[in-house]
Amino acid sequence: MSASRAGLEDVVAGTTAVSEVDGEHGGLSYRGYTIADVVGHLGFEGATHLLWWGRPPAQDPPARFVAGLAEKRALTVETARVVDALAPSTDPMDALRMGLSALAGFPYPPTEEQGMRVVAAAPSVLARFHRRRLGLEPIEPDPALGHVANFLYMLEGKRPDARRVYALESYCISVLDHGMNASTFALRVVLSTQADLLSAVSAAIGALKGPLHGGAPSKAVEMLDAIGTPENALPWIQAALARKERLMGFGHRAYKVEDPRAILLREIAGRTAPAARFELASTVEEVALAELRKAKPNERLFTNVEFYAGLVLEASGLPRDLFPSVFGVARTVGWSAHALEQAAHNRLIRPGVEYTGARGLSFPPEAPVRALP
Amino acid sequence: MSASRAGLEDVVAGTTAVSEVDGEHGGLSYRGYTIADVVGHLGFEGATHLLWWGRPPAQDPPARFVAGLAEKRALTVETARVVDALAPSTDPMDALRMGLSALAGFPYPPTEEQGMRVVAAAPSVLARFHRRRLGLEPIEPDPALGHVANFLYMLEGKRPDARRVYALESYCISVLDHGMNASTFALRVVLSTQADLLSAVSAAIGALKGPLHGGAPSKAVEMLDAIGTPENALPWIQAALARKERLMGFGHRAYKVEDPRAILLREIAGRTAPAARFELASTVEEVALAELRKAKPNERLFTNVEFYAGLVLEASGLPRDLFPSVFGVARTVGWSAHALEQAAHNRLIRPGVEYTGARGLSFPPEAPVRALP
Repeated sequence: MSASRAGLEDVVAGTTAVSEVDGEHGGLSYRGYTIADVVGHLGFEGATHLLWWGRPPAQDPPARFVAGLAEKRALTVETARVVDALAPSTDPMDALRMGLSALAGFPYPPTEEQGMRVVAAAPSVLARFHRRRLGLEPIEPDPALGHVANFLYMLEGKRPDARRVYALESYCISVLDHGMNASTFALRVVLSTQADLLSAVSAAIGALKGPLHGGAPSKAVEMLDAIGTPENALPWIQAALARKERLMGFGHRAYKVEDPRAILLREIAGRTAPAARFELASTVEEVALAELRKAKPNERLFTNVEFYAGLVLEASGLPRDLFPSVFGVARTVGWSAHALEQAAHNRLIRPGVEYTGARGLSFPPEAPVRALP
Repeated sequence: MSASRAGLEDVVAGTTAVSEVDGEHGGLSYRGYTIADVVGHLGFEGATHLLWWGRPPAQDPPARFVAGLAEKRALTVETARVVDALAPSTDPMDALRMGLSALAGFPYPPTEEQGMRVVAAAPSVLARFHRRRLGLEPIEPDPALGHVANFLYMLEGKRPDARRVYALESYCISVLDHGMNASTFALRVVLSTQADLLSAVSAAIGALKGPLHGGAPSKAVEMLDAIGTPENALPWIQAALARKERLMGFGHRAYKVEDPRAILLREIAGRTAPAARFELASTVEEVALAELRKAKPNERLFTNVEFYAGLVLEASGLPRDLFPSVFGVARTVGWSAHALEQAAHNRLIRPGVEYTGARGLSFPPEAPVRALP
């Protein structure tokens, strides 16, 4: 047994050919293509095709795959009943987990067909839950719309404008997969017992709910709201740091340089967010980095994915409390790809543990015995 | 980075003081007490007290803790609505996961109070689901009954006899915890993101659903049914082995000698199962071990926990398709103890991964670009 490694940082827990995270040089690629290249050339369905089959589709959007996903969007009566039973106060991430769990009846091993059902149903679950909690009737999916446009349509009941779809689709593509993160690892641990894909995706959604993993992209835009104007950035940030508060949107364990998703989403935000909002964000970013580097001169601190993710999601028009669960809606693509990989060469994931407790205790002879009555 | 370890067998993923599995010598102890000693002296609530607080209660049953659990049994209207919305065909393990998820609103970090709510609600979720799928009205919990007796009461609507309660309670105590198994590890991975206890327990239930972890204790009693008589044991088993079928209830990765839970549950089965049934099981066990050792002379093969677990659960009168989920009902105790441990010294569990895919690809210059519309 090797020494105890509470975070498993330096332990290689498996292999993957889905995405590569290069923390040293700030790279993230899907099947060998940088995410900037993918976002620059493919839509959501095309990028999913790339992740699952290892090559871009011959045409983008890939018509047959788009149609295959679209026909799996509608929830069954049974699934809809579970979503409708959820209390309006349910956390949307929990709603996503329970709604996808209710798809039910996925035999092991996972298949691409099962993955398509999960990916297709995720926006339907979330949109139905969102409208129900507002007291609104659910909207049936529109097969003429792509995956991301249809999601906005099911939330709002009207066709979204192209700029908003572009923002949300770019966000989703940029977070489709990210190596062996905590949710993907949780998915693989569960799947390694030969449990079904829905059990494994439920675990992954649970992990994504944790702020150390799924983060809080809405916190970054809340910070922008609190700061209000570019002029207020410096005094606000200095006051926050003096109070030892954590600034949202800076630093990531995997990256020693700037997170490539941050670079990409900054560019997308520049194209999709209102000019004044983008200017405020740019100023806040600049001031925050300068102040953080002053306070911690020995740390390599950069903007992380959350900062501009918040701005891009805001530009897409999504309600803020759905931001974390939309991360999950996108990540169902990467989880499905990892589930297929895990099942192809499965082995039960069951690490060792160091026992640090008492030994050799026993009940005294006079202790009452529990006997068969 | 160390070499890739797909199953993490020789990696120590953390520390625990809850239970110790000694695979070399066939030991399993809770907080230093062997499980035989615990089952011999404590009921379900007393054993839970031992697992959570590290010492047996001053009196067993521990009256205040029993009352504290009992008052948390009733499901809220919101949780009951989700359970009632589940399709009757839902796998009981999925029903347990979704019902517990619906408790909702557990802030991080986990607390003993939260653990009590999960442990107390698990039988209520399962009993309600079971009665609903049979078209029966749910039964309100009876605060005069202990945790296990009340579970049988809520399933059936009548007070169970003491022998059946003894069987089920002994089973539950013998599987309360088992080191860092796959479900407990999944729970810790999810919790390490600072996700809530219900998200983590959902993941654990998903892992327990996998046949490589939660197993199939009902398969062992199905095998007994198929064999029928002691005389038929030898020809049936020889024929099964000739067909290369796996015999249920033999072998366990963690143990090089006999699983201590198998020894304990054999004894409990001897006290609680009908004599003819126990005799059949004993003969099948003896013949199966002899034939397996003949077929695989180099392997150390023993009866595992599932074989007699099936017999004990059968003696408790539980419906067979609830056997796997009752494992989960009991294991909520161990999961809660591990959640408290994990949160006390938390660190994000995020292992490395070896990338084995393509590198350095890019779209050709003539590829169509995805532009902001």
